[in-house]
Amino acid sequence: MAVQSSNIMQDQIDQLLQWLSGFGKTEDGGVTRLLYDDSWQQAQEAVKGKMEAMGLEARYDVVGNVFGRFEGTETTDRVIMTGSHIDSVVNGGKYDGAYGVAAAVLAVERLKQAYGRPKQSIEIVSFCEEEGSRFPITFWGSGHITGRLPEGETEALKDADGISIGQAMRACEFEAPASLPLKREDIDSFIELHVEQGGTLKKSNASVGVVSDIVGQRRYHITVEGESNHAGTTPMPERKDAVVLSSELITNITAMARRKDESMVATVGKMEITPNVPNVIASKVVFSLDVRHHSNTLLDEFERELEQLYTTTGKSFGMTVSSDCWMEVEPVPMSKDVYETMYKAAESLHIPSRLMISGAGHDAQVMGSYYPTAMLFVPSEAGVSHSPKEYTKSSDLEQGVKVLEETLFRLAY
Amino acid sequence: MAVQSSNIMQDQIDQLLQWLSGFGKTEDGGVTRLLYDDSWQQAQEAVKGKMEAMGLEARYDVVGNVFGRFEGTETTDRVIMTGSHIDSVVNGGKYDGAYGVAAAVLAVERLKQAYGRPKQSIEIVSFCEEEGSRFPITFWGSGHITGRLPEGETEALKDADGISIGQAMRACEFEAPASLPLKREDIDSFIELHVEQGGTLKKSNASVGVVSDIVGQRRYHITVEGESNHAGTTPMPERKDAVVLSSELITNITAMARRKDESMVATVGKMEITPNVPNVIASKVVFSLDVRHHSNTLLDEFERELEQLYTTTGKSFGMTVSSDCWMEVEPVPMSKDVYETMYKAAESLHIPSRLMISGAGHDAQVMGSYYPTAMLFVPSEAGVSHSPKEYTKSSDLEQGVKVLEETLFRLAY
Repeated sequence: MAVQSSNIMQDQIDQLLQWLSGFGKTEDGGVTRLLYDDSWQQAQEAVKGKMEAMGLEARYDVVGNVFGRFEGTETTDRVIMTGSHIDSVVNGGKYDGAYGVAAAVLAVERLKQAYGRPKQSIEIVSFCEEEGSRFPITFWGSGHITGRLPEGETEALKDADGISIGQAMRACEFEAPASLPLKREDIDSFIELHVEQGGTLKKSNASVGVVSDIVGQRRYHITVEGESNHAGTTPMPERKDAVVLSSELITNITAMARRKDESMVATVGKMEITPNVPNVIASKVVFSLDVRHHSNTLLDEFERELEQLYTTTGKSFGMTVSSDCWMEVEPVPMSKDVYETMYKAAESLHIPSRLMISGAGHDAQVMGSYYPTAMLFVPSEAGVSHSPKEYTKSSDLEQGVKVLEETLFRLAY
Repeated sequence: MAVQSSNIMQDQIDQLLQWLSGFGKTEDGGVTRLLYDDSWQQAQEAVKGKMEAMGLEARYDVVGNVFGRFEGTETTDRVIMTGSHIDSVVNGGKYDGAYGVAAAVLAVERLKQAYGRPKQSIEIVSFCEEEGSRFPITFWGSGHITGRLPEGETEALKDADGISIGQAMRACEFEAPASLPLKREDIDSFIELHVEQGGTLKKSNASVGVVSDIVGQRRYHITVEGESNHAGTTPMPERKDAVVLSSELITNITAMARRKDESMVATVGKMEITPNVPNVIASKVVFSLDVRHHSNTLLDEFERELEQLYTTTGKSFGMTVSSDCWMEVEPVPMSKDVYETMYKAAESLHIPSRLMISGAGHDAQVMGSYYPTAMLFVPSEAGVSHSPKEYTKSSDLEQGVKVLEETLFRLAY
């Protein structure tokens, strides 16, 4: 492989990210690129232009994913795909998603200059959407090419202004498809680079993290029903206080998750109290619960223990607790073949790496259910993400690109 | 004293309350009469008309309290005052406040018919405001005649539409006073009848409750500051989760209040979580705490224990907890002289009564800080209040009026 001064590569990846962050730049240095909005259109069009300038064959699909194809010399009916998503959360950082696209562009450009065409075709992908920030759906991009989205979503799903995805698509000249595109059957493997969005890599001595599993997620609404009453005239033993019971539950749920397994996480991030008035005992609390682990068996076990907790605690308070699992995402193991190639690539470059579990969802999770998939993390400073403060050092960004380049070389050349 | 058939008296008090509930009637049978709104004006004007029809000398003061004076034959420079407030919460019940006004009207009318003029002047009062439902202030009526309100409130306090109290007063032809009226110095005693708004009387065998003390209230904002982080990528031991710490505190505060004294109550009715998103660890929770007891010493002790709890728990979680006491209402003992007269009045009528503590604030609390004051409760069915479902049986309403009538007779005749 070509050896190039570190500073040049760091400058290149920095410049690509700086350039991308110009689309949808916010006042405090973040980015807002929501599916099909102006900034998103400009960014996706710019990525397509960059691919064309590199000599790749670039195209949109019906929903606005952009693919840049670097045609192989031998195996042309099956592709190695790499990339990530171009959309962001509202006032998000400039690395989440964009890094995976920029890294793919830079790695392929470097391979092209050094070695010319690969044996097997490579495609860079800039997925149109992953975050779910505009419409109430996530993975709109990877969901389409895997053919996993249900029919009829384009008119049913609406943003906060009541605009449907279909309307938004037509407004930027995509055709809202009458029927969904079929699953792409030509993808041999998918590789995604991403910032970690957590603090594990920074705390370890590794420069990159090779992902072995992406956790499953279960999200619940827990409803606690008590009785609204006067805060002054209702003696403590006669209360059915939904806030007090919820507090007891939250304390226990958290303790149970910690005991269950060191990589299990449980989060109550949202609470809605009724009537939410200082001098009235709460009649009702609905709180969210987000539980994640990479083993479905453990998630099942935990769910059963939760149900038992709700029954026991509800009974002891003389109140009712009900739980509704409104989202269930299966854990997705990455392809051992592909991630071992990646791990060995890092090793050959003397880049310290570690195997790790992704606690966040990514396009690699959707892709990994259909195609052999691998994912590489680079460290996030202070673990911060979804914020203008999101930051990864240039030297870390560079290490990631190097591992991707070497992995693509091993797979496609 | 005159003896009259129970049914007639029950009909009289029922009719008075039915008549008053016609002003500001809501769709589901409740009432909404907010300070200076149309329904309020009609109700207060109707009460004034009723007083005049009874032959009393009726007048508004500058803020819209209505007084109906039944001039005494001997002591005319000092009055026995009785009544309550005419305003309501939004979609409240027809007994809260209105019962105290109606009971005063009926009791005085009966005394007048039976015995003519009293020795000492009696005044019926219909306070303009007690609930704090329109403007961010309570006890606007009793606050004025006790001279305890600070200067300059009339233009500073605004309702949800940005209308100041001064504007609202001028709109219904009250003069917003340039300076506040002085405290009335001619009040010998004040007696208020009210529905209990709790379930204590219904559970005991007593028909009426003679109030010995009105509790002090302290209201706090408790702020818990943690760190916002990704719900998937942040291991449990590394979290600074403001929801988890708040839950721990709420559980402990409640348990501490129960241990402290059987008549202490502590309520967390309102919680504000930041950012309040299911998949983000909460960086901040602000919750309300309402603590009530009739002993200031116990309230002080409890406050010191709370401070200790915040420090200890905050430290063990590596987070900060701060507390701000934004409201402090002193406990107010009722006048032993007046409430013993009332207690004996009930006894002479063979009406079972009990001494009790009021856990809610009332006009009697403000008046009790300045004048010898007593308060009588009648039972609330199911303890319900501030709701269209608020209900007190006619026979209970009658018992209250009888005790008031006998008490006024003992004090003024």
